[in-house]
Amino acid sequence: MKNKQKRLHILVSNDDGIDAPGIYALVAELKKIADVTVVAPDEQRSAVGHAITMNYPLRVRKFFKNGKFFGYGVDGTPADSVKIGVRTILKEKPDLLISGINHGSNTAINIIYSGTVSAATEGTILGIPSIAVSLTTYDKPDFRFAAKLSRKLAELLFKNGLPKDTLLNVNVPPLKEKAIRGIRITKQGKSRWDDTFDVRRDPNNKEYYWLTGKMDVLDTAEDTDLIAIFNKYVSITPIQFDLTNYKALNKLKEWNLERLFSKKKPNREKSR
Amino acid sequence: MKNKQKRLHILVSNDDGIDAPGIYALVAELKKIADVTVVAPDEQRSAVGHAITMNYPLRVRKFFKNGKFFGYGVDGTPADSVKIGVRTILKEKPDLLISGINHGSNTAINIIYSGTVSAATEGTILGIPSIAVSLTTYDKPDFRFAAKLSRKLAELLFKNGLPKDTLLNVNVPPLKEKAIRGIRITKQGKSRWDDTFDVRRDPNNKEYYWLTGKMDVLDTAEDTDLIAIFNKYVSITPIQFDLTNYKALNKLKEWNLERLFSKKKPNREKSR
Repeated sequence: MKNKQKRLHILVSNDDGIDAPGIYALVAELKKIADVTVVAPDEQRSAVGHAITMNYPLRVRKFFKNGKFFGYGVDGTPADSVKIGVRTILKEKPDLLISGINHGSNTAINIIYSGTVSAATEGTILGIPSIAVSLTTYDKPDFRFAAKLSRKLAELLFKNGLPKDTLLNVNVPPLKEKAIRGIRITKQGKSRWDDTFDVRRDPNNKEYYWLTGKMDVLDTAEDTDLIAIFNKYVSITPIQFDLTNYKALNKLKEWNLERLFSKKKPNREKSR
Repeated sequence: MKNKQKRLHILVSNDDGIDAPGIYALVAELKKIADVTVVAPDEQRSAVGHAITMNYPLRVRKFFKNGKFFGYGVDGTPADSVKIGVRTILKEKPDLLISGINHGSNTAINIIYSGTVSAATEGTILGIPSIAVSLTTYDKPDFRFAAKLSRKLAELLFKNGLPKDTLLNVNVPPLKEKAIRGIRITKQGKSRWDDTFDVRRDPNNKEYYWLTGKMDVLDTAEDTDLIAIFNKYVSITPIQFDLTNYKALNKLKEWNLERLFSKKKPNREKSR
């Protein structure tokens, strides 16, 4: 009987905070196909990387939007929100996790600083198929197409699942659907920030520093995330959290590091 | 002429804060072979992941230890400290960066939460051969062997360099040198946290949550970081910040994601 089928249940989080327009647009769209639980930082927590809160306790507050219950606000990071959502708020594991829609790009080196991606990473660690979705503009955003695409991806992932320990990092150009040229499956670009610090003086004449800078575009390859966006494609990058550089492993074994000990060790790596 | 040779210059940072005993032990040892500049968070910033501060300005203050100048304290994260150290405080790029010595293990899933590792990652992004060093105990630590090993590694790296965009994550068991069985070149283990939240009530009877939990040991392989430490070896893992899951790339291309658009796109990925 159809009405006995379990309805899709999606956990939604972000790093722009539970009151951000991007999460609101996402949730409105996902509710067409799923039960949605929102657990997100109670205010903006951008560029927090994969931070978790261990030295302070966390608070959870119900958050209302236009007089209606919208979700749970956590006074912590995106990763905190996902952990506490899955471990404490939800009775059972959700079918999917979607983090976003972030207001701004999460491509190239920005992936490692991204709170949006970290929420999806935490979901993956907890065994939930997870995606991070970003709209690549800092101007006034129109989240409608990105929200619709997220809904369609959710339906697909609910059927297909994802490779083990892999999440999808989705970046959507700020264009109408018909102006977008398609979808590219991409790799993380090598571009990184050429940071500068803007030095200012406070009213007491003491220096303080604002981080600023511009992106140093180091790729031209069409199959990288940043370039796909430049070329008006949606970029989808499969990402992982095993950071081992396997290529470097064997090289390092040749270094014979046992010689760093004062005395020879009987169980030397190189003799294995 | 020997005294015209450029002396090795090492930038040191950490996440336990500039006043932590681990960074002090490290600097004392490194000064035997190098000029050392310390730029580190002004207080503990553990488990901050690769956070950077964009919404607040940063302050830098000179920090004195036992009446002598020790280094620069930054009211930001480990990654902030490295960025501001390299971009603002130092006149030229240092030869090496060492982050640590962390008080506690940075193995398996902890690598992605680690501020110690993030400082070394930021160094690598900035083109500096970088290592993160941790002493794997939470009891009263003796940093002496880990500091000596760091010095020897520094000398070796100054000669050998490191593979591009690769840092070393070094974990040292809390044992005397003669009790350590050697060095293992390892991969990041798959073990992760079985989180629980300890729910308490404040004096106003409102709930708050402390993150706790235990490590779920999912590896038995000797060539993983966590198991190497269990077996009394120093663990050295080469790590990277390209998070692309290359194996999943081709699988995703087969999904024909273009069908998620309402209308067919002329430049379809699958026709390429």
